[in-house]
Amino acid sequence: MRNVRIVVTNCNTTQEMTEEIVRGARAAAGPGTAVLGLTPAWGPESAESWLDSYLSAAAVIDTLRTYDGPPYDAVVMAGFGEHGREGVRELVDVPVVDITEAAAHLACLLGRRYGVVTTLERSCGQIEDSLELAGVARNCAAVIGTGLGVLDLGDPDRTRAAFLAAAERARDAGAEVLVLGCAGMTGLQRTLTDRLDLPVVDGVAAAVKLAETLVALGLRTSRAGSLAKPEPKRRTWGATDPARV
Amino acid sequence: MRNVRIVVTNCNTTQEMTEEIVRGARAAAGPGTAVLGLTPAWGPESAESWLDSYLSAAAVIDTLRTYDGPPYDAVVMAGFGEHGREGVRELVDVPVVDITEAAAHLACLLGRRYGVVTTLERSCGQIEDSLELAGVARNCAAVIGTGLGVLDLGDPDRTRAAFLAAAERARDAGAEVLVLGCAGMTGLQRTLTDRLDLPVVDGVAAAVKLAETLVALGLRTSRAGSLAKPEPKRRTWGATDPARV
Amino acid sequence: MRNVRIVVTNCNTTQEMTEEIVRGARAAAGPGTAVLGLTPAWGPESAESWLDSYLSAAAVIDTLRTYDGPPYDAVVMAGFGEHGREGVRELVDVPVVDITEAAAHLACLLGRRYGVVTTLERSCGQIEDSLELAGVARNCAAVIGTGLGVLDLGDPDRTRAAFLAAAERARDAGAEVLVLGCAGMTGLQRTLTDRLDLPVVDGVAAAVKLAETLVALGLRTSRAGSLAKPEPKRRTWGATDPARV
Amino acid sequence: MRNVRIVVTNCNTTQEMTEEIVRGARAAAGPGTAVLGLTPAWGPESAESWLDSYLSAAAVIDTLRTYDGPPYDAVVMAGFGEHGREGVRELVDVPVVDITEAAAHLACLLGRRYGVVTTLERSCGQIEDSLELAGVARNCAAVIGTGLGVLDLGDPDRTRAAFLAAAERARDAGAEVLVLGCAGMTGLQRTLTDRLDLPVVDGVAAAVKLAETLVALGLRTSRAGSLAKPEPKRRTWGATDPARV
Amino acid sequence: MRNVRIVVTNCNTTQEMTEEIVRGARAAAGPGTAVLGLTPAWGPESAESWLDSYLSAAAVIDTLRTYDGPPYDAVVMAGFGEHGREGVRELVDVPVVDITEAAAHLACLLGRRYGVVTTLERSCGQIEDSLELAGVARNCAAVIGTGLGVLDLGDPDRTRAAFLAAAERARDAGAEVLVLGCAGMTGLQRTLTDRLDLPVVDGVAAAVKLAETLVALGLRTSRAGSLAKPEPKRRTWGATDPARV
Amino acid sequence: MRNVRIVVTNCNTTQEMTEEIVRGARAAAGPGTAVLGLTPAWGPESAESWLDSYLSAAAVIDTLRTYDGPPYDAVVMAGFGEHGREGVRELVDVPVVDITEAAAHLACLLGRRYGVVTTLERSCGQIEDSLELAGVARNCAAVIGTGLGVLDLGDPDRTRAAFLAAAERARDAGAEVLVLGCAGMTGLQRTLTDRLDLPVVDGVAAAVKLAETLVALGLRTSRAGSLAKPEPKRRTWGATDPARV
Repeated sequence: MRNVRIVVTNCNTTQEMTEEIVRGARAAAGPGTAVLGLTPAWGPESAESWLDSYLSAAAVIDTLRTYDGPPYDAVVMAGFGEHGREGVRELVDVPVVDITEAAAHLACLLGRRYGVVTTLERSCGQIEDSLELAGVARNCAAVIGTGLGVLDLGDPDRTRAAFLAAAERARDAGAEVLVLGCAGMTGLQRTLTDRLDLPVVDGVAAAVKLAETLVALGLRTSRAGSLAKPEPKRRTWGATDPARV
Repeated sequence: MRNVRIVVTNCNTTQEMTEEIVRGARAAAGPGTAVLGLTPAWGPESAESWLDSYLSAAAVIDTLRTYDGPPYDAVVMAGFGEHGREGVRELVDVPVVDITEAAAHLACLLGRRYGVVTTLERSCGQIEDSLELAGVARNCAAVIGTGLGVLDLGDPDRTRAAFLAAAERARDAGAEVLVLGCAGMTGLQRTLTDRLDLPVVDGVAAAVKLAETLVALGLRTSRAGSLAKPEPKRRTWGATDPARV
Repeated sequence: MRNVRIVVTNCNTTQEMTEEIVRGARAAAGPGTAVLGLTPAWGPESAESWLDSYLSAAAVIDTLRTYDGPPYDAVVMAGFGEHGREGVRELVDVPVVDITEAAAHLACLLGRRYGVVTTLERSCGQIEDSLELAGVARNCAAVIGTGLGVLDLGDPDRTRAAFLAAAERARDAGAEVLVLGCAGMTGLQRTLTDRLDLPVVDGVAAAVKLAETLVALGLRTSRAGSLAKPEPKRRTWGATDPARV
Repeated sequence: MRNVRIVVTNCNTTQEMTEEIVRGARAAAGPGTAVLGLTPAWGPESAESWLDSYLSAAAVIDTLRTYDGPPYDAVVMAGFGEHGREGVRELVDVPVVDITEAAAHLACLLGRRYGVVTTLERSCGQIEDSLELAGVARNCAAVIGTGLGVLDLGDPDRTRAAFLAAAERARDAGAEVLVLGCAGMTGLQRTLTDRLDLPVVDGVAAAVKLAETLVALGLRTSRAGSLAKPEPKRRTWGATDPARV
Repeated sequence: MRNVRIVVTNCNTTQEMTEEIVRGARAAAGPGTAVLGLTPAWGPESAESWLDSYLSAAAVIDTLRTYDGPPYDAVVMAGFGEHGREGVRELVDVPVVDITEAAAHLACLLGRRYGVVTTLERSCGQIEDSLELAGVARNCAAVIGTGLGVLDLGDPDRTRAAFLAAAERARDAGAEVLVLGCAGMTGLQRTLTDRLDLPVVDGVAAAVKLAETLVALGLRTSRAGSLAKPEPKRRTWGATDPARV
Repeated sequence: MRNVRIVVTNCNTTQEMTEEIVRGARAAAGPGTAVLGLTPAWGPESAESWLDSYLSAAAVIDTLRTYDGPPYDAVVMAGFGEHGREGVRELVDVPVVDITEAAAHLACLLGRRYGVVTTLERSCGQIEDSLELAGVARNCAAVIGTGLGVLDLGDPDRTRAAFLAAAERARDAGAEVLVLGCAGMTGLQRTLTDRLDLPVVDGVAAAVKLAETLVALGLRTSRAGSLAKPEPKRRTWGATDPARV
């Protein structure tokens, strides 16, 4: 197998989160795969709303647009339920895999229905829409929020309990497989697997493997329709008055 | 009726397009309604791809976020098929109407099925997705592109012929009502109405009236779910290095 | 704005209900709008079943067919979940808006999912079907009955409590916006808005504004398909033997 | 098998049509089944629009409501695509089968997709809605109109040619089975079967057999939900001023 | 009515079950109908999993393929939720009715939504898929398992209690009609009907009547598409080494 | 990466086809992956009908049930559109990937809509059903048959022309990505890619990579629902009388 270089884009500006995601990506990656994490230079410090999601989409696209590091073979977009994947697909000439869809694709192979457990309840709608447009919502039994905010995630006991409760609600709604609807939570994956005896899919790991797969098979985004390369034109990526930012 | 002040946001940075949209908005507005056009200070000069659409979404949100003009009662988002409406709904405390959904809502009242005719074929998918998530795709019979780019629109005969051909395809697919899938084309609306004897809905006009309606009825975006106000946090809106833009 | 004359048709023969509906319509109408209420000369005294609904549909169509008052610019059909709107669209040459669809159209603009709260549980299915065919069911999270019959509505405390309970069930099912699934309940709208902090849409008000909108934009029902004018033919509207009625 | 008495309701006031329908019903009925045709005393002379359909629904319900002939065991409603079946189900205490749904139910048993061929194109939408709400639209590949009006049906060659052309369009859309979307056309059924080598289902025959089936199995309409008996109340069935009718 | 000979295929190898099914079929059959039960010579002794279902499908097809008894006019496949109906439709030249779809078709005629109550919860998904592909899932409100295994069915009190509980859950989910999702349970049908005052449809009875109907109307499976006769080719139906079986 | 041993099951008894499939699987497999082809000892010599598909499902399950070779880590089922995957998932304790769903999952990552091109038109329905139940049909624009039978595939020019024509029809229906709906056609994949400039996904290659992925991530089929292990019971896998087979 030839070496594969994967760029993983964080959806927010928090460097620690990028590092956590990269750790997860590397743990999943094959031996010949190199993972490079990219933190957007601008955008939200965490993505937890539609507003954040659109800001994040533009920032991630801009990050890849202005990237001038070593070449890469695939992009993994590590924002669960966040926007932007079609834009990145237009921009870059390599396969692009979003962790939301990636987790759902693998989950479909492991059971008749899957469920997503995530942090804030306000994100559930965004995740549902993302799965719908990716074409994998049919077998999604439920998207369940824990009500936990980002700060609450610091308390591991409370986090575990909240995710277990959400997972049970997903299972009661018919989920035979769980998708972890957030990035950087390896421990949680183990806990849920052990306690509920259900397969638990992590989006970052799923996306890394799917990216490796597309590269290995020589498959690229279609240019013959809605995802053709954007026309060259004048675009500005943020306010030109730096004082204003 | 009390006066209504509507802000209409262009989805691109082209001032002439804003002016054209504002003319259309004013033509539709009631006597007590004032229309203010906003051109994003950044973003694409025209929105014709997913990449443009996400860039536009962030730029429009930023434009409203940093707006410091006179107060307003509603926002009309004038980018057909473009992203961002949920983000703007979170941000502002007044009703928000996107011209894509607005046209579809009115079209549903005028016939059993409607069709959308638009410029580039690559935009059709984006429009379909936008209608789907807005909840009004069920009665959409077809979204048809003319194959015309923005530059081609300068030739009125060719434009007319292309839109008539697209409209006939929509009608053959079952459309009883047409939606004009682009902004600033008043003449075209008249031509299609006259030649095809079908009602033709213009998105800007539809959105202005729906915005007036929501204001008149005292209705605002729900905060009780996915569209709650975004949490305060650190967000940056574009690259901080001005040389880079 | 030129003056708009709206005819509002009650779905039943109860004059007091017509008056209540007209009060609601006038409260929503713009300053240049005149509202005329029409009570069918025949039909059910209240519409609470499929049988009532079909009887009401024929009676409302007949009422408009035999109407010989001053001209009007639009029709608002004020029977929540009742049949007949396509028939009225065929008959009259002006825009027709049904309060069921009208409320749903506006609700879609205010949140990601809406819910309907109504009186009898037996009506929920009829309302669901009406929303489905109007093309706006996708974002409907739930239609919930209160179990209250028409007579129970006389007890305001019990009514309020029942509607609050139904509204909470709708919210738990994902509704971010409420639609009041019955006419003539202005006080209830205020109560629900205040207690649940959700936008509440009233169908009569919504339909009046949408009717004004269609008139202002010069839009009429499409004749190019399923809603063409009915062919002239022999039709009789009720038993010819008056003793039998 | 005990004797079964089926009332077949015509959807219009044309006695000859009732007779034609009764002939078809008797040809399909089992040896122990008696068929009684009912022609509404009022309504349209033929049902070819939404307006006609709602008028027909009320008239058919009234016909059954005021019926005082010998008892019967089931009702067959013989208006293809016409409204009213839920109202009749509420009214009578015996099973009710509408020819639209009946034909579709049998067609589903004969192939993976079925298609409907009917007379006027304007009726296609009504038929689609009727199939959708009956729960059998999923496997309907197409509803195709011939463009023939009722008068044109007098010319057998033209009728045959038009239905053959429509049937071929349905087959090209994936139909493996045909449904005849009109009543009283036995000859046509034979022609289509012979020429296209497809099974052709006639709604009247299908409904008679399904009615016999429900009677034989002792099955009746559920009262536990949307189809409960209508409450007694004041209802008038047509204008009280006979001069006006 | 000419005599009708119906072959009823059990989905498993248990002769007692075939006898029970034949008793139910005969109870539903018309006076001129003869019922012949076929027990597959191979396959599972009961069908309670996907593996069983596929094994059963092949065994039932083989049973009919190698059948050399007297001729028959229709096939009823008596495995609730089991696979194989399209294969049998290809194989035989007479109408084929599966008890799953048959029950759903009749249930749709009796109420706005129906629910299925069955034994093992693991079978619910299979039943849902079967209804979906048969084109009758739209009006299915719920498929509910009792958690009872085959052995538990020996205890009539427990069985009754479990099915009553499942039926109540189906009703709470909106079912107005019940379908018994298993064969050979006549007593249960009576109990549910009496206690819940809902119509209860038994699949074997429904399928027998639908088979009689198709025969009476001279309707056969379409050969013009996916259900054409299989090409002659080499096929082996089970391991050739008898020691291995 | 630890070594992965994949068993690839042919859906028919033709050894040459197994070899062709294994060649394709090995070409796609990673360096640490061993591929073992299994040819069912019984079943159809090619699978081209529903009957063949059910026979094939049972034979493939039996082949794995009686397999006593070296252990393996995953199963790839190489019958495009064929039945049986849920049964195999129940049976074996390792991940199972069917080539139909596998191709669709990858295709979804490469464009907004995909299309399938396959051999016989009669198989299109089976493929559509398979995609639907796998949860990936939403973004499938079309499944197109070439009309070619297995014997015609011997003529490479005719095959190429037929598949190119089918691919163009898929593209016209909106497909941005193609799926090759048959196994063992590597040359064809290249031709389509080159001539149409669309990504073309081969199911065997896709399934091998997805199987490697599930193994690498330690993911297995869920036992918590419809795919629990089948209960031990008496099952016979084919006629016990060898003379009869």
